[in-house]
Amino acid sequence: MKLNKNVIEVPYPYIRAMTEKATKLPNNIILTIGEPDIPPPSRLLEETVNYAKNNPLRYTEAGGRERLRDLIANYYNKYYGASITKDNVIVHIGAIEAIASSLRTILNPGDEVLLPIPYFSPYRSVIELAYGVPVPIDMKNNNFAIRAKIIEKYITSKTKAILFSNPCNPTGYMLKKEEMDELSSFFKEKDMFIISDEIYSSISFYPFVSFSSYDCLKDKLIVVNGFSKSHSMTGWRIGYSIVPLNFRQFFLNSSFYNIGTPVALSCAMAELALEKFPERDDIKRIYGERGSIIKKDLADMGFDLVEPRGAFYLFAGYGRFSKESSFDFALRLLDKTSVAVVPGEAFGIDGYFRLSLTKDLNILKEAISRIKTFILCTGCT
Amino acid sequence: MKLNKNVIEVPYPYIRAMTEKATKLPNNIILTIGEPDIPPPSRLLEETVNYAKNNPLRYTEAGGRERLRDLIANYYNKYYGASITKDNVIVHIGAIEAIASSLRTILNPGDEVLLPIPYFSPYRSVIELAYGVPVPIDMKNNNFAIRAKIIEKYITSKTKAILFSNPCNPTGYMLKKEEMDELSSFFKEKDMFIISDEIYSSISFYPFVSFSSYDCLKDKLIVVNGFSKSHSMTGWRIGYSIVPLNFRQFFLNSSFYNIGTPVALSCAMAELALEKFPERDDIKRIYGERGSIIKKDLADMGFDLVEPRGAFYLFAGYGRFSKESSFDFALRLLDKTSVAVVPGEAFGIDGYFRLSLTKDLNILKEAISRIKTFILCTGCT
Repeated sequence: MKLNKNVIEVPYPYIRAMTEKATKLPNNIILTIGEPDIPPPSRLLEETVNYAKNNPLRYTEAGGRERLRDLIANYYNKYYGASITKDNVIVHIGAIEAIASSLRTILNPGDEVLLPIPYFSPYRSVIELAYGVPVPIDMKNNNFAIRAKIIEKYITSKTKAILFSNPCNPTGYMLKKEEMDELSSFFKEKDMFIISDEIYSSISFYPFVSFSSYDCLKDKLIVVNGFSKSHSMTGWRIGYSIVPLNFRQFFLNSSFYNIGTPVALSCAMAELALEKFPERDDIKRIYGERGSIIKKDLADMGFDLVEPRGAFYLFAGYGRFSKESSFDFALRLLDKTSVAVVPGEAFGIDGYFRLSLTKDLNILKEAISRIKTFILCTGCT
Repeated sequence: MKLNKNVIEVPYPYIRAMTEKATKLPNNIILTIGEPDIPPPSRLLEETVNYAKNNPLRYTEAGGRERLRDLIANYYNKYYGASITKDNVIVHIGAIEAIASSLRTILNPGDEVLLPIPYFSPYRSVIELAYGVPVPIDMKNNNFAIRAKIIEKYITSKTKAILFSNPCNPTGYMLKKEEMDELSSFFKEKDMFIISDEIYSSISFYPFVSFSSYDCLKDKLIVVNGFSKSHSMTGWRIGYSIVPLNFRQFFLNSSFYNIGTPVALSCAMAELALEKFPERDDIKRIYGERGSIIKKDLADMGFDLVEPRGAFYLFAGYGRFSKESSFDFALRLLDKTSVAVVPGEAFGIDGYFRLSLTKDLNILKEAISRIKTFILCTGCT
């Protein structure tokens, strides 16, 4: 029997492939996965456990209960200058479900979704599984920042949306105020949705500017965020979207007929997180420090680095050392050093790899030392 | 901007509509929602809370961790005579995500999905949102049991699957061994997937027979189940599917690019549930007792009842009392008695309503007494 034509073409994910290979190696250093190594605040966990002891955990309201949606709206209004209410907010199973359900809400088969390169690797398959056509757009120069004048060339009558992460996974770049101003002026004139994945907004080394602060975009902006990175709640599966008010019912139905309702205890934990631990200066400091130290080490070796302004990744070009494909380069690196990174091809671009800063600085330093030996031994310098 | 053509046509759910209306009434008795009133075993909750205290709750394996998949396979093998392994099992966010992701795995646009009436109300929209075409099939007589000779007439070259629940929501009917034998012989010759939603399998008043016990269906059978009904874990959002082994990777990708990974703590709780509380004689007894008492009361009044053999619903025909549409009948009942039920139209059939047995027997008795007055007052008998 024939399966769905898009499903059978989904490639095996590079991140999973590299991680599985690395797991079997002794003495490995796995820098592939984007999962915080810093646990959630211990008091947050304690209070969540207490909540579970004292409250029934039944079906929640579809799209998330009012209290949580209120807290999310207040958070965006207070910290990011948005002007939204709880009715703009839909609670999801992680950011991925927010993106998948949102795309299914807006796309008709054949609609195009602009995808600035490098993009978070699952985006491409998520778009294709929603019958959309991804339109990758190479964003060379300026740290791969998204530029209106480049995007403009790719807009057609079929363009339905643009999808990107800011701060960017994999580069760690975060758009500057003047870049945001320019993009917002550009987007407001275009008949398309803007899907801004802001899952790393809490891990920013400079003031974060959200597209939600631009009132002119409110009828076309879909913001995606969640608690996996800000509060290390990866296993709790809770994300949210901020959607145009007049389309709320449609976004809600799309998610409801996909996952039913959000996870009750995760909703309670997210409420506690926003009430008691809204500011994450600790993780900003830790990832910021790791990023600047390791970035300097790699740059000193001769790698081509993007300046990290947020998130917990480094995106390194190895053009000075090798002409291999990024998959071959990453495989050889893994083979020789047991250090696992993600090939740039996973994000739509060759010649780079992504390294996660989600290990203790000592371990990252050890990885750097192995990479240094690897580079010297290959004799390419 | 135009949204997805299917999303804008999703009807407002009757269950939610009736429940929202009822919630505002004083002295209401809400028998709409299919959520167990009996809490999870208290020791299960305690051990889950202990688990949360002592274990990091990080991303789980996509499709569920090995241990849980192993326990699910063993459960189906031991209790339902299946012959499956952990590799047949995929863990999901509730049964609804299992169904939505499975449909997206197998359907191409325009593929037909046979839908015996009455069907669990979300099925229709879930199929349409996956670009499938629902083909409702009226199953009159024999308690609405699915019959091969009726299905046969609706099979076309576009038929990709059949989707039904067994035990049936809304009727409470559960297929008998001889009916299962006949259907399996029929299905095994057909080039289509069988999606058997067995979410109520633990609440059966006679021995439950699963389609997974028929080896001849193993290349085309998708079983859906979960912990919401068996262990009252509704808010924990955990379900699973059993899929043909050779298609595992495709079903897995479809779910992975939809929700990422399952909920870590819910997986742990499900493991504890299967290890320590696999048999649910207590809930079988309670729902069975409520069902037979209330069924008799309604039948004595003159309603046309399906004999409940599983689940926790009664499906009652009111043809002797009124020619109204089921929505009008349910609205008038709510208006006069503050008893909320779900109109049959939600399940694809007029002239009936569904009543959930998820309240204490005293409350159900009070609802019955109000319904009796309502029937007498309308003077239709």
